[in-house]
Amino acid sequence: MAAIEEKRSPVCVGIDPVLERLPDNVHAVKPFPESVGRILGFSVAVIRAIAPFVPCVKIQSACFERLGMESSFALESALIGARKSGVQLILDAKRGDIGISAEHYAEAAFADDPMYARGADWLTINSYLGEDGITPFLRPGHGAFSLVRTSNPGGDEIQNLELKKGGTVSHAVGEMNARIGSRHIGDRGYSSLGAVVGATKPQDAKRLREIMPQQIFLVPGYGAQGGGIDDVLPCFKSDGTGAIVTASRSVIYAFKKDDPKWMDSVADAAAKFADEVGKAVGMR
Amino acid sequence: MAAIEEKRSPVCVGIDPVLERLPDNVHAVKPFPESVGRILGFSVAVIRAIAPFVPCVKIQSACFERLGMESSFALESALIGARKSGVQLILDAKRGDIGISAEHYAEAAFADDPMYARGADWLTINSYLGEDGITPFLRPGHGAFSLVRTSNPGGDEIQNLELKKGGTVSHAVGEMNARIGSRHIGDRGYSSLGAVVGATKPQDAKRLREIMPQQIFLVPGYGAQGGGIDDVLPCFKSDGTGAIVTASRSVIYAFKKDDPKWMDSVADAAAKFADEVGKAVGMR
Repeated sequence: MAAIEEKRSPVCVGIDPVLERLPDNVHAVKPFPESVGRILGFSVAVIRAIAPFVPCVKIQSACFERLGMESSFALESALIGARKSGVQLILDAKRGDIGISAEHYAEAAFADDPMYARGADWLTINSYLGEDGITPFLRPGHGAFSLVRTSNPGGDEIQNLELKKGGTVSHAVGEMNARIGSRHIGDRGYSSLGAVVGATKPQDAKRLREIMPQQIFLVPGYGAQGGGIDDVLPCFKSDGTGAIVTASRSVIYAFKKDDPKWMDSVADAAAKFADEVGKAVGMR
Repeated sequence: MAAIEEKRSPVCVGIDPVLERLPDNVHAVKPFPESVGRILGFSVAVIRAIAPFVPCVKIQSACFERLGMESSFALESALIGARKSGVQLILDAKRGDIGISAEHYAEAAFADDPMYARGADWLTINSYLGEDGITPFLRPGHGAFSLVRTSNPGGDEIQNLELKKGGTVSHAVGEMNARIGSRHIGDRGYSSLGAVVGATKPQDAKRLREIMPQQIFLVPGYGAQGGGIDDVLPCFKSDGTGAIVTASRSVIYAFKKDDPKWMDSVADAAAKFADEVGKAVGMR
């Protein structure tokens, strides 16, 4: 919340790099193979360009994992780049396991052993496995965003099923997160267990906001996925806190491939995105 | 199914190595750091020891991911070791994402580019996100096991909720998997989309077997987690096909730490496990 106040906007930019969409003029980091080096060089350049305007970045683990043998080196290098830029860092890996395996995943995301230099602040998780799939991720100084209501077309099939006791599956997942998260509340009254609530489900966001008063909502689906500013406002409380709006493609690919100054275009898109959301919630 | 017939037992051994439980006498693979080399050396030795008796191994991705910078090298080396041993290879990573991110995860698990030499046969996935979180993982020559009913204590909270339309959440997830999987049926009448159904929920296994007639069930929870042979039988069809029973700790740690011949003890435990399940389903 301090980072949001400093940048005067509750936004996050998703770093989801794919080779085909990179600008021509991107530095390939050595000694990685060309493709890995370009993905990494692009990611770090984007983070540097947007860091003055946004409090938070979300790095998509899958984009790095597919790179093969060097993937863990490359991902950790990107994480180091983000940490140096001073933004809050969400690793978007949607991990979901129990017991010792969940502890392994938490360690992989959060450990800041100087040898490894990882240290994401937040991790996205999947809570279909229940409480023992969530608590291992709630460590001092770190937090998790649990998938509650996703923004994709197929998200309705399970998440929107109606329950015999009333409400839907996503409401029950929200109630579970509210209960578990209430044991991990910080100085500002919010929990270190947050919730992913898609911008494309505004009718559900209002109800989920009531169910989870102490959860920070991470709200994907803004921009390229079709959600607009009116769709994300129900995710916030009346005081303008409680949610972080995420955009990815509309910011990180806001350039023509042959533009040598593509980083300026990315910075402009991030500034515009931050301004739009910051104004809508009364922070500017 | 051919691998199961060849070994005359529908079993899988989970490779979930943790440093604290390794035998004293384990080869640390070079040039990895000591801890990474020991995890890798143990994993490959276990796979070699059990390969004569079991058709299938399941490698827990989390155990490798926590190893830091060298983790993707180490995981891929373990995968190569498993492929050389001729067993069917399940990567237990419980991945769950949509669209291009899901395609990245599928590529990371299944690609067999000679440069990277991965090539898991199967991947475990989480289907809370719905159909667009499942179909990217259904590739020719590969398959996925979707989490339907997990064996952990917290699994009930969401999975066992009763629906207004009848049945439970896990039944609805099963129905979704049955529908999507029916588009990917092989020569033996089973789908390349399977289901994870825990051995600790025998009362649910029978109903899920009816809901998913074409899914192969991957059944964890046998042995150390408390499930016995009577608990897993409802996961099979009456002809003894349709499920793979998984054990991990009860096989891979079946030794005294200071036993120099610990691999023999692991092999014996795998042989006994395969024999017990093989007899119970009438294959021996």
